[in-house]
Amino acid sequence: MSLLNIAIAQLNYHSGNFSYNATKIIDAIKQAREEGVDLIVFSELSICGYPPRDFLEFYDFIKRCDESIATIADHCNGIAAIVGAPFTNPVKEGKDLYNAAYLLADGKIQQVIHKTLLPNYDIFDEYRYFEPNRVFTCVTYKGVKIALTICEDLWNINDNPMYIINPMDELIKQQPDVMINIAASPFSKSQIAVRKQVMMDNVKKYHIPLFYVNMTGAQTQLIFDGGSMVLSANGAIADELNHFVEDGGIYQLAKTGEVTVLKKHLQKEYNDELENIRQALVLGIREYFLKQGFTKAILGLSGGIDSAVVLALAAEALSKENVKAVLLPSRFSSPGSVSDAVEMAEKLGVPYETISIEETFAALEKTLAPAFAGTTFNVTEENMQSRSRGIILMALSNKFGYILLNTSNKSELAVGYGTLYGDMCGGLSVIGDLYKTEVYALANHLNKEGMIIPEAIISKPPSAELRPDQLDSDSLPPYELLDAILHLYIEERKGPDEIIQAGYDEATVRRILKMVNMNEWKRLQAPPVLRVSTKAFGPGRRMPIVAKYLS
Amino acid sequence: MSLLNIAIAQLNYHSGNFSYNATKIIDAIKQAREEGVDLIVFSELSICGYPPRDFLEFYDFIKRCDESIATIADHCNGIAAIVGAPFTNPVKEGKDLYNAAYLLADGKIQQVIHKTLLPNYDIFDEYRYFEPNRVFTCVTYKGVKIALTICEDLWNINDNPMYIINPMDELIKQQPDVMINIAASPFSKSQIAVRKQVMMDNVKKYHIPLFYVNMTGAQTQLIFDGGSMVLSANGAIADELNHFVEDGGIYQLAKTGEVTVLKKHLQKEYNDELENIRQALVLGIREYFLKQGFTKAILGLSGGIDSAVVLALAAEALSKENVKAVLLPSRFSSPGSVSDAVEMAEKLGVPYETISIEETFAALEKTLAPAFAGTTFNVTEENMQSRSRGIILMALSNKFGYILLNTSNKSELAVGYGTLYGDMCGGLSVIGDLYKTEVYALANHLNKEGMIIPEAIISKPPSAELRPDQLDSDSLPPYELLDAILHLYIEERKGPDEIIQAGYDEATVRRILKMVNMNEWKRLQAPPVLRVSTKAFGPGRRMPIVAKYLS
Repeated sequence: MSLLNIAIAQLNYHSGNFSYNATKIIDAIKQAREEGVDLIVFSELSICGYPPRDFLEFYDFIKRCDESIATIADHCNGIAAIVGAPFTNPVKEGKDLYNAAYLLADGKIQQVIHKTLLPNYDIFDEYRYFEPNRVFTCVTYKGVKIALTICEDLWNINDNPMYIINPMDELIKQQPDVMINIAASPFSKSQIAVRKQVMMDNVKKYHIPLFYVNMTGAQTQLIFDGGSMVLSANGAIADELNHFVEDGGIYQLAKTGEVTVLKKHLQKEYNDELENIRQALVLGIREYFLKQGFTKAILGLSGGIDSAVVLALAAEALSKENVKAVLLPSRFSSPGSVSDAVEMAEKLGVPYETISIEETFAALEKTLAPAFAGTTFNVTEENMQSRSRGIILMALSNKFGYILLNTSNKSELAVGYGTLYGDMCGGLSVIGDLYKTEVYALANHLNKEGMIIPEAIISKPPSAELRPDQLDSDSLPPYELLDAILHLYIEERKGPDEIIQAGYDEATVRRILKMVNMNEWKRLQAPPVLRVSTKAFGPGRRMPIVAKYLS
Repeated sequence: MSLLNIAIAQLNYHSGNFSYNATKIIDAIKQAREEGVDLIVFSELSICGYPPRDFLEFYDFIKRCDESIATIADHCNGIAAIVGAPFTNPVKEGKDLYNAAYLLADGKIQQVIHKTLLPNYDIFDEYRYFEPNRVFTCVTYKGVKIALTICEDLWNINDNPMYIINPMDELIKQQPDVMINIAASPFSKSQIAVRKQVMMDNVKKYHIPLFYVNMTGAQTQLIFDGGSMVLSANGAIADELNHFVEDGGIYQLAKTGEVTVLKKHLQKEYNDELENIRQALVLGIREYFLKQGFTKAILGLSGGIDSAVVLALAAEALSKENVKAVLLPSRFSSPGSVSDAVEMAEKLGVPYETISIEETFAALEKTLAPAFAGTTFNVTEENMQSRSRGIILMALSNKFGYILLNTSNKSELAVGYGTLYGDMCGGLSVIGDLYKTEVYALANHLNKEGMIIPEAIISKPPSAELRPDQLDSDSLPPYELLDAILHLYIEERKGPDEIIQAGYDEATVRRILKMVNMNEWKRLQAPPVLRVSTKAFGPGRRMPIVAKYLS
């Protein structure tokens, strides 16, 4: 006989949009009750959306969280719900809030547990707001003792633990029947496998079933892929929800610890890294527009690989009629680039137009001629072209309500091979967390199911086309080499000695690391970058600007 | 008879510049030894500069810190030194580093103490890197027992303490003779008074003398004003070092706890808020250029108050011949603006030139005419003018090696009354933490000692001059009202209900708060802002972009 019917709700929340989030939660509660569910579980900070960031410092915001909890509790009759929200610390000493999980039943708050391990690395800032929990109590509902934890609380089980305590080591002493973990665990290309392993490791250690509830959707840079799962006491994954979409499941938990899955959810495997990246970026684009209240994107289509990949992803995310491609040729554009761009736009069925930058660039040259007398064409004039494109794209964006998509890749962002206020313009950087070699790999992946990106765009040597016969390889090492060194420095955080010892040329290594560190000022003003790696430019990587280290 | 001669060294460090910092520290040690000093004290993380940010995540960086400590220890013979540096956590559990104070003597490390309270709010991220100390031990040197703490360790003494522990409450049990605190406490306009009060409160509570050593200089947004001080056991400030400059002092500490000051240092009072702001901004500009290796600034001089104040500050910071003012008139510029700008540049003796944006703007209009057919002049064309100015200024910057100074104020940054990639361009925002009303106050302050900013610039109604007869007051409430509401929202973190209850019109309040929240995406790409308030835009204020809260 089943003891408890547990539902997990993997939903997509909007930061600060209390009525939207509450409605979504209440709808799920009502539906679950109709399906005979005893307890429905939502993800971390589901009330206010994750991450709420400095909204948490506003009393008004916390008050609205509390009001939302009360509204939702009203609907918890004949069913219990676990939701995530901040909880005001009643004690004067310590931070003013806890990151909490609320058990709601019989129309009111029954119990509140606090998060113990507060991630405060990479993109996480939780100790900025929250006091860590120090008291360990299981939650009991209908005779089932639940070890209820929040996200990071289950993650301190590797070889170099970041915290001196393991909440489950404390809770297990109370002999819980089941673990429930409510999470807000963002996607990275390695995260799906890592997350699954961490959950399995917990079950292997504590020998009770685990219900893991993650969120989906995206919040600016952060993409949440979901992948909520239920693990049996033997450590096997009994069910896994679909990734990158809202999903939910209902399970029977027996007193023996046996988990019964009525319906398997996962419709496909998520072991193709490039396909995961594609889905993540498409979700990231779609969410940015949806949650900002925009529908239409614009981008400059150069005939190069970067803008081609961004165009393909944007067309998938927003549908082709909502994406406008603009060709912005100059005297230095190769005829091939223009025709390749046209071919790409036509193949995709995306509206495009061609606007030459020549008049603008020529006017700038003329205006600046007295000031520039005696100087020769150099990177200044290259930047002027790039900025002429930026100003035209932004004008179209302003006039017609497009959001400009940025097409910079991670390699060029890293070494500063881009023009601030020029090709670095945009509301959202789509592929700013993909090295150039990864952009090629993704392009080939996109082409697997029917050619989307013309072969010429993939095969031609990369060029900014800002002066005659310019090639990226004039200024940069080959991308295979550049990206390998960048990966060691940025993702692996290796220093110059370690990278050189790994077999790379000393002068090249020092030159590249210097370029990365000298361009922090430029990246500070870059658009938000959709995060798909373990170390993306943006809030997860915080570097000094005025510094002299490797620079 | 004196027991211990203690020197405090208030120096200016450069993040990641190990040889520069070590040389500076060693020079101070040598000089102090010659002057009969027993112990010289440097500020927090003096070895690597504060804040080192994510450099701390590189093993290479920590290794260099350790090497620097060893080099400096070699010079500690016949004298002891206390320096700040990271310390590798020998235990596997917990974060990999401590924020530490090293006692160096007899050529080696004698003792290391760790920071207990890790600030992780506003601009601080210390729990991102460091494990908090949990073991409390005084440091003993030449028979003097020292309660050695690091910055925040002394700050948990207000009514709403952020931490559940007070390190001095533990250390005082060991009956130390003296407190030494090494700090990296950044300037804000209220900080000088607050900091002094906190130090006095500590002495009043623990009844032993206090040597407080802060750093000076600036690190991008953060300005460190120094203000190191020595307090007698009775709670009086025995000596205070000069602010905004490197300084140092030598004191005799008797076993009785009596502090003897041989020479008073403070040459002026720091109770004029506007004068403090002026000094802070001048230091902030100077440091940004010095530490980036640049000497020359450029800025657009519009004839309005903002660029006038920035020009005056830049001329003071970099000297007038290193600042280039560019007038960029359009068909909408009033004759008064141009002549006021010229008068200002000539008064200051700053080189200036006039470059019309008309050709560029006209070329853009012509180029975009087919795309814009059937539309009317609106904010798009205003932005095109602003961006034409941006592109010209950046071209001059690129061609001649200037850094472009941004002239946005905090009011316009708050409500998004500025053009991204236009007037929001620049390497450094000088007055981005001053509300418009504060910019006026600072202008009047600058004029007190002889007119620098022409009266017409101060008295004319503010206008962006991007369409005929445009005034800021067409789009925004009067600045007195706007700034008051912004201050309640940004600095005080009051919500709409609280601000309305304070007596402000509901529609105005809701409109302004909405403008602030809807423009987070724009501020994300703004230049770094010199921080002079308790809540500046930038790393100290972290807001969601895609959100719906008050928006």
